[in-house]
Amino acid sequence: MANGSTLLVGIAQGIQRPSALQRMLPSATRRVLNVQLTELEHHGLVSKTIFAELPPRVEYELTDLGRSLLPVIEVMEQWGNTHRTALEQALAGNLAELPN
Amino acid sequence: MANGSTLLVGIAQGIQRPSALQRMLPSATRRVLNVQLTELEHHGLVSKTIFAELPPRVEYELTDLGRSLLPVIEVMEQWGNTHRTALEQALAGNLAELPN
Repeated sequence: MANGSTLLVGIAQGIQRPSALQRMLPSATRRVLNVQLTELEHHGLVSKTIFAELPPRVEYELTDLGRSLLPVIEVMEQWGNTHRTALEQALAGNLAELPN
Repeated sequence: MANGSTLLVGIAQGIQRPSALQRMLPSATRRVLNVQLTELEHHGLVSKTIFAELPPRVEYELTDLGRSLLPVIEVMEQWGNTHRTALEQALAGNLAELPN
C-alpha cells in the first residue's frame, strides 16, 4: 500500500519512467516495482505509454481516477507525519514485550 | 489494510468481542482475525482487556491513536464508494486482457 501511494505521488510530480521511479523506492527490486506499476495500471490509476524507440521508452501517467486519489493519500500522509512518534513508540514498546 | 480499517470502525461502533468482530469479517479465519487484532494492538491503535472470568472474556477498545485514524478511514471509504464503478470497470477490463 505504501509503495503504491509513493508511486502515485511520484508520477504526479512528473517522475514517469521506471528507472526514475525505481530510485524513489531503493528497497524495492525492479520486479517488485513492475508488479506494483502493473497493479496500479490494472486498477485504472495509471496509464502506461511505450514509445517505439530503440531502446523502447516507457512512461507512466496518472489517470483521472489516479489523480482523484491524491487528496486521500495526502490525508494519510498527514496522519502518518502527525502520529509518527506515537506509532514508533507503540511498535517499539510492543516489540520489547515479544519473547526473543 | 481493508480488514484493519473494518475492524477499527467496528470496534469504534462498540463491536468489541472477537466473536462479534469475526462475524464482521466472515471471509477471515479466526487465526487471521487474531493476527490482525494483534497487529492493530502492536501499532497502538487498539487496547485489549482480558476479564478474569470463566470462560475468560476479551474486549478490544480504540486507543486515542486508533480514534484519530477514523477520519482518514472515512475519507478512504468515501473515495472507494465514489469510485467503486470506475475501479470495477478498470479491473474487469484489465482482467479481460490477461492471457487465460
